[in-house]
Amino acid sequence: MAASIRANCRKVVCIGRNYADHITELNNTKPKQPFFFLKPTSSILLPGEGPVLRPKGINLHYEIELGVVMGRTVRDLDPTDEKGALDAIESYVLAIDMTARNVQEEAKKKGLPWSIAKGFDTFLPISEEISKARLPNPHDAFLELKVGSDVRQSDSTSLMLYQIPRQLAEISRVMQLEKGDIILTGTPKGVGPVVSGDIMTATISVGGQEISEGRIEVA
Amino acid sequence: MAASIRANCRKVVCIGRNYADHITELNNTKPKQPFFFLKPTSSILLPGEGPVLRPKGINLHYEIELGVVMGRTVRDLDPTDEKGALDAIESYVLAIDMTARNVQEEAKKKGLPWSIAKGFDTFLPISEEISKARLPNPHDAFLELKVGSDVRQSDSTSLMLYQIPRQLAEISRVMQLEKGDIILTGTPKGVGPVVSGDIMTATISVGGQEISEGRIEVA
Ligand SMILES: [Mg+2]
Ligand SMILES: [Mg+2]
Ligand SMILES: [Mg+2]
Repeated sequence: MAASIRANCRKVVCIGRNYADHITELNNTKPKQPFFFLKPTSSILLPGEGPVLRPKGINLHYEIELGVVMGRTVRDLDPTDEKGALDAIESYVLAIDMTARNVQEEAKKKGLPWSIAKGFDTFLPISEEISKARLPNPHDAFLELKVGSDVRQSDSTSLMLYQIPRQLAEISRVMQLEKGDIILTGTPKGVGPVVSGDIMTATISVGGQEISEGRIEVA
Repeated sequence: MAASIRANCRKVVCIGRNYADHITELNNTKPKQPFFFLKPTSSILLPGEGPVLRPKGINLHYEIELGVVMGRTVRDLDPTDEKGALDAIESYVLAIDMTARNVQEEAKKKGLPWSIAKGFDTFLPISEEISKARLPNPHDAFLELKVGSDVRQSDSTSLMLYQIPRQLAEISRVMQLEKGDIILTGTPKGVGPVVSGDIMTATISVGGQEISEGRIEVA
């Protein structure tokens, strides 16, 4: 259940700039290696707990992302050890990495940390847990985010620049990953603003079939 | 005990640039309001668990800081509510916010997050727990950090630009603080590098008397 995912989570590690077309849309440059940042566990919003809070003066952006839930502690994972990486995964969640884009742009300009831009309460809606049986290949799933009835993000996870084993290797070279930790694997193109009253619907599909426990609907 | 502090900690929030002379020494500007960033809980190093790991190619800096351990959940704390802030504190720890300074400088230049620079395993040595009875006024304590026998940092917590109630107010306006969370309250001047074999000794005193449970000795 999503509630136990939140209860057992000690950190949320988010990969930045992991889909080429998303890098272009924000005028960023492709990183030479994966980079990442932390969201506080207190930002996790469970299914039914919405809405997402919209702090005053904030340009609030959605970023749909596939989330990995760790099943065991991993340190210094070998980037070529794909089996080791996938074995260390407990399950998945769909997630929306809500971002205060104007605060983030200001932080980038001033060389300040991203924690405030990424860390407000309710800034991490997640779905129910998705078992590995339901998502046998995390690099062959289709992510879609709608605002109202408009499709805003719609891409395959096969477009990740760095796949999950490489992500876990890069993170665990710096900080050990522990059972319950969540890794957000980056967002495809199409990020944009939402305002009060907008309904976001995020879904994940495999082979054209939606995985029902992966759906997020939040105002 | 320090072990239960680590076990119960869901986030570590660190205040940046909170002592005037430290801002000057790193050629930074004084923030118009407190800002903060996250360290992963996996970076916490308990007494006796050392040494601090020195990743290759890293210019490793120490920053002595007074740490606050939260006793209850706090949201949107009123910055003028000093009693409310101090009542929400469970206890204190002394801490060293180890920093990969060259990685941080590079991140600042590129507008990237600080999480890697601040987040390596072992980058947060802490002391045993310091009760509120032992530290009745957290703004009247003396912090000292030695490398070998050289005193490198040595200043009073009275020099904080933003005191603890204001810090808790600013953080909890963005992200709720939960029981067990740790807040690092900033470092005074004198930060600098350590290399393999260096022994760091960090102490905290009140009225000229060292608080014994606050001592950190780590290689
Ligand atoms: Mg993201
Ligand atoms: Mg955390
Ligand atoms: Mg610091």
